Amino acid sequence: MGIKSGVAKAGIKPSGQLDILVMKFKPSVYSVYLTQNSLAAAPVIYDREIREKQKKISAIVVNSGNANAATGEEGLRNAEEMAKIVADKFNIPSEEVLVFSTGIIGVQLPMDKVRKGINKAIDNLQDWDLELSAKAIMTTDSFPKYAEEEIKVNGKSFFVKGISKGAGMIHPSMATMLAYIFTDVKISKPLLDEITKDILEKTFNSIDVDGCESTNDSVLFVATGESDIEITEENKDLLVKPLYSVALKLAKMIVKDGEGATKLIEIDVRNAKSNEEAKKIGESIAVSNLFKTAMFGNDPNWGRILSAVGQLHLDIDFSKVKLFIGEFLIYDGKPIKFDRKKAEDYLKRNSEIKIKLILNRGSSNWKYYTSDLTYKYVEINAEYTT
Amino acid sequence: MGIKSGVAKAGIKPSGQLDILVMKFKPSVYSVYLTQNSLAAAPVIYDREIREKQKKISAIVVNSGNANAATGEEGLRNAEEMAKIVADKFNIPSEEVLVFSTGIIGVQLPMDKVRKGINKAIDNLQDWDLELSAKAIMTTDSFPKYAEEEIKVNGKSFFVKGISKGAGMIHPSMATMLAYIFTDVKISKPLLDEITKDILEKTFNSIDVDGCESTNDSVLFVATGESDIEITEENKDLLVKPLYSVALKLAKMIVKDGEGATKLIEIDVRNAKSNEEAKKIGESIAVSNLFKTAMFGNDPNWGRILSAVGQLHLDIDFSKVKLFIGEFLIYDGKPIKFDRKKAEDYLKRNSEIKIKLILNRGSSNWKYYTSDLTYKYVEINAEYTT
Repeated sequence: MGIKSGVAKAGIKPSGQLDILVMKFKPSVYSVYLTQNSLAAAPVIYDREIREKQKKISAIVVNSGNANAATGEEGLRNAEEMAKIVADKFNIPSEEVLVFSTGIIGVQLPMDKVRKGINKAIDNLQDWDLELSAKAIMTTDSFPKYAEEEIKVNGKSFFVKGISKGAGMIHPSMATMLAYIFTDVKISKPLLDEITKDILEKTFNSIDVDGCESTNDSVLFVATGESDIEITEENKDLLVKPLYSVALKLAKMIVKDGEGATKLIEIDVRNAKSNEEAKKIGESIAVSNLFKTAMFGNDPNWGRILSAVGQLHLDIDFSKVKLFIGEFLIYDGKPIKFDRKKAEDYLKRNSEIKIKLILNRGSSNWKYYTSDLTYKYVEINAEYTT
Repeated sequence: MGIKSGVAKAGIKPSGQLDILVMKFKPSVYSVYLTQNSLAAAPVIYDREIREKQKKISAIVVNSGNANAATGEEGLRNAEEMAKIVADKFNIPSEEVLVFSTGIIGVQLPMDKVRKGINKAIDNLQDWDLELSAKAIMTTDSFPKYAEEEIKVNGKSFFVKGISKGAGMIHPSMATMLAYIFTDVKISKPLLDEITKDILEKTFNSIDVDGCESTNDSVLFVATGESDIEITEENKDLLVKPLYSVALKLAKMIVKDGEGATKLIEIDVRNAKSNEEAKKIGESIAVSNLFKTAMFGNDPNWGRILSAVGQLHLDIDFSKVKLFIGEFLIYDGKPIKFDRKKAEDYLKRNSEIKIKLILNRGSSNWKYYTSDLTYKYVEINAEYTT
């Protein structure tokens, strides 16, 4: 395999766990989506510049344990240096290296450790190990997140493989958390951009844990072109399907691992006027603390769900709305009698919950994913201080 | 005093506490602000119609324990009937009565109880008792909320008195929760509207408990004209000051009584480009779960505060930003060394916290009020099901 990865323990994480990841591949087309938070971290600012001028990249370097955010000029110089160390070691231009960081905000990178760690990771380079790579980018994550698919077409084949991290500060705007997804198809950059933009919206941009957008959110798609499969406008569905599937798996793992979460909740908004409206409605439910605590309490509280929709002031006619929790219809244009015990049991017994809201005002659908709000979320974010 | 109140226990609240309030006064100019939530409750829909056609009102009726929301046609008929019972009993037109409800969503009002309760309340009519009135509109509130001021001008005097309720589902858009504020000055309706609109924005529309907007939010200002003081464009500050003061006191009581809250937090945003921007920034911090849990955990976590600002994508230059917790400067254009122990002690020892964010990009200021997010909030909203 042409994609290589190396990891190292640089000592940035107080726990002493893996905290450096370097990946090397042949010069490849890519699409990268970076947070819009105006407190953007130094690596995000650095990567924005690379994105402006570079059609191809051939390496990435990631550190966990320190976000290099709110670190001013010194932070920017450190992000640049991370790219340069990698470039020098591989004898490639600095502009072919993207840099990512995740962890604590407002603390300068310990560059002595970072330098040694990057060199060590490169010395450890091997065929891409997804699990090890995913471990090296974890922060408050409780499990490594990776997914892969192989697709066979007329005797040929290609793959889509990815890793991601994230558990808190999850509420994306242009992208969320860190995720790196590779495929070996041949594809032009414009077509890759077109396909990934749509997939991004439906996956990493449709998840929430706590309504809080991060300073370092980044999602990278890379196509190395090493397989014999060429993707064009005509056969693009070949790639869209597995790419969407891997991205969605990775995004859902982030929600499932949401700080303190006991449930992954799918909010399926149907028959809205537009995709934008459907997404906005899903999001409004997803971020409602009253909804999220009700889900934790196994309470089929339809009033809180509809009220979160009403909060958008979209002039929804609630006499046309149907609401399901699992397979149970719990609101049908007006309050109805439903078997509360059964609906509660469904919520109690499942860690993956489906909410379906049928608006009957158009033909657009959207799925949004969120977690419940628990005592543990408060504990993680109140008791464990920075 | 020309303003009368009567309360009763109608049995709408399972606890058997006071749940009906009727107020009667001479036909008076008024300004009423009603929720924009499109799942608006029946009394809100009813009051909107009255607002369209009536320059003066002379009575209000409020029930607690049942919001009369998501109750369809039957709910609307019940709201109308509540007004009619009051109107008949006082021998006034129905159009002079505003109706309000608060409590559980999606359950029809028990009209037998409501009818008897309203009649009983009217039989109990007496000079306005603020504390009793405030008690009759409580739901999850832990204390009754009322405030009053008397203003003397050249030997004459006037008063501003008000009551409010609210503890959860607090995140206003046009108005929040229930609040009724009376003054006895003489004033035209247009001038009262102008003054109260501005005061509403700076008080009830600048508070948050949980980001969730209610279906029944209503704020009513009434001027009975019984005092000898006449308010005009020229001397309007006479009224603005005490009216703002009473409204702010009532609004802050709602935040202080926020479900599970241990802290009332004032977010003072300074030197923004515009009032709208300053308010938006205050709100973004106020609704951040990461900020609210940090406050609960006594953690002076400036990264979470600045990140909530960055989330608005306003292109803020954080190298110009200063951030204070209490009197402690904790961020000064970049991370700085500050006495963390002292800042933590300040958060630990005070139940009223001040956060000051100086943006240095304009001359507009705004204060927003919020509460912390605690285990108790999760308990109240997860364990006590509907």
